[in-house]
Amino acid sequence: MKRKRIVTVGGGTGSFMLLSGLKKYPVDISAIVSMADDGGSTGVLRDELGVLPPGDVRQCLVALSDSSKILRELMNYRFENGGLKGHSFGNLFLSALEKINGGFSAGVEEASKILNVKGEVIPVTDQDTKLYMELLNGDKLRGEEEINHNHDIEAVGIRENYLYPKAKASKKAIKRIMEADLIVIGPGNHYCSVIPNLLVDGVAEAIRKSKALVVYNCNLVNKKGHTEKFNLHTYAESINKYLGKDRLDYVVYNMRKPSKGLIEKYENQRELLIDFPRDEQRKGKYKVIQADVLSGKRPIFSVADKLASQRAFIRHDSDKLAKVLMMISELGEYENIIKEIV
Amino acid sequence: MKRKRIVTVGGGTGSFMLLSGLKKYPVDISAIVSMADDGGSTGVLRDELGVLPPGDVRQCLVALSDSSKILRELMNYRFENGGLKGHSFGNLFLSALEKINGGFSAGVEEASKILNVKGEVIPVTDQDTKLYMELLNGDKLRGEEEINHNHDIEAVGIRENYLYPKAKASKKAIKRIMEADLIVIGPGNHYCSVIPNLLVDGVAEAIRKSKALVVYNCNLVNKKGHTEKFNLHTYAESINKYLGKDRLDYVVYNMRKPSKGLIEKYENQRELLIDFPRDEQRKGKYKVIQADVLSGKRPIFSVADKLASQRAFIRHDSDKLAKVLMMISELGEYENIIKEIV
Repeated sequence: MKRKRIVTVGGGTGSFMLLSGLKKYPVDISAIVSMADDGGSTGVLRDELGVLPPGDVRQCLVALSDSSKILRELMNYRFENGGLKGHSFGNLFLSALEKINGGFSAGVEEASKILNVKGEVIPVTDQDTKLYMELLNGDKLRGEEEINHNHDIEAVGIRENYLYPKAKASKKAIKRIMEADLIVIGPGNHYCSVIPNLLVDGVAEAIRKSKALVVYNCNLVNKKGHTEKFNLHTYAESINKYLGKDRLDYVVYNMRKPSKGLIEKYENQRELLIDFPRDEQRKGKYKVIQADVLSGKRPIFSVADKLASQRAFIRHDSDKLAKVLMMISELGEYENIIKEIV
Repeated sequence: MKRKRIVTVGGGTGSFMLLSGLKKYPVDISAIVSMADDGGSTGVLRDELGVLPPGDVRQCLVALSDSSKILRELMNYRFENGGLKGHSFGNLFLSALEKINGGFSAGVEEASKILNVKGEVIPVTDQDTKLYMELLNGDKLRGEEEINHNHDIEAVGIRENYLYPKAKASKKAIKRIMEADLIVIGPGNHYCSVIPNLLVDGVAEAIRKSKALVVYNCNLVNKKGHTEKFNLHTYAESINKYLGKDRLDYVVYNMRKPSKGLIEKYENQRELLIDFPRDEQRKGKYKVIQADVLSGKRPIFSVADKLASQRAFIRHDSDKLAKVLMMISELGEYENIIKEIV
């Protein structure tokens, strides 16, 4: 049987988790990665070295790497002192390779060889661009970092978000989308990781035209001030809106509740579990796959990345999610005889 | 036939050149590397991260690496802007590996695997130490960087140079010296790269006791204010003095003169070609091998390391020097029947 061609669209820790699970299956993976990041170590490197943002690409490379544990740890290692403080070693690795190879994509290809990457990691664009968001009150937010930390977005309302300068999709990204059997969007920070991919010229159009099944992995919790009032359908509709068509075939919804204590902890941060209102009129024609895709384990964090240990405890389980996605890719074969899943 | 066991003792570009040539032969190479460096990128990393000095070790690893050209270029890549300016990527690589592996030597071993190193690179000590030099006028120079840039050393005279805190040789370094067939000292910056190895407790004693042939590769030019008045014998006697015994068996002297223009250029910098006075009484019993070990090529510098391109044009040819050393290692077999070489 032909190996399934799976394209993931996202960035950051969401993609890391997703790819870590998918790579265990005999499938061809192409990870398309957002290039809008401009915060933290990545932001400093963009400013000071004039490189393209390495952070999201690094996470995907590490997820798909078949090299030694040490080498993967090394890529996530963050320096803790002095002028290097906060820099992820892997970001420096990608920036140096970009400089030596005269281009970010060429650098990523070299990095893939060195890290023995299974599949490919494709920056969604090779162009240096920035994410902007204009709010309904006229405010203009400049850059992913500024948008990420603004908590009035949902209350004020978005007029438009866009990339400037306009960015064209990498040819390889378009090719892989068009050839894909399964396109997996998300999970990830909605406005800062997922949507920026769809703002790149050519991406949404290619997804619309592709014959692939398109799946959206909904996040587990809402983001304060960004998507606080979203439910499952609001997310799916938002994705369809940026795709320019009701294109989603499936939406994966986590049905397992985290512990009460954890939920309260998150609620204090205004990060609420995502609701799935059964009776609500669905605008898109997508099917909802309800599944337990929650990680039950207490996360074991890398000693190499102390920042990561401050992150989410309500997390996807990469193996569970990969299993659901593989099932969907098989369902595709029987698509026409299935009437409804939920 | 048993593979020859060759131990090199040095650091910096001298060792890089030497190892690049030796690795082409079917021999077992152990490169013992000075740990006294505290200038440039290495100095900043020592200060800010509390790591051991990676610079010299990096050069030896790259020289012995059998990995792709890109990976070797990457290790020598120097960042050119911002907070990373001047840092060699390979230094960051070694410092991060030291942190992850909880020790410099363990980090170097991991690096050797990643870089597919032929042979081994052994930091002469695992202890954090600093090079000091006391002059006859009472001045005390603190650290390799300060010593390197002081040009009154020879005029004033040295009372003593030493490491503080005292550093003990790594066990592996001692073992390799004791097992060696051939020990190769230098070339390299006399007081800042070569001698600091012999100041580490146990190293000189092991070389004295080892049954190996001991060869000293004399430098091509003197260093302003350090060894300006040295001739071949002064160098050899200085090495023997730090070895604590007339231990050198052979001294390699370059007999080919560089172009007149190049010589003048160097003389303007007070860097003179090294003299070999034939009639002078030799204090040691070493034999002098006169050979053409000069590089005739205009150096092709790595695009990755712009600093390197500002360096020496009067340079050793790594292949020629390696050939001479291999010849010496064979001569060893006939040592007793050779009366004199020069």
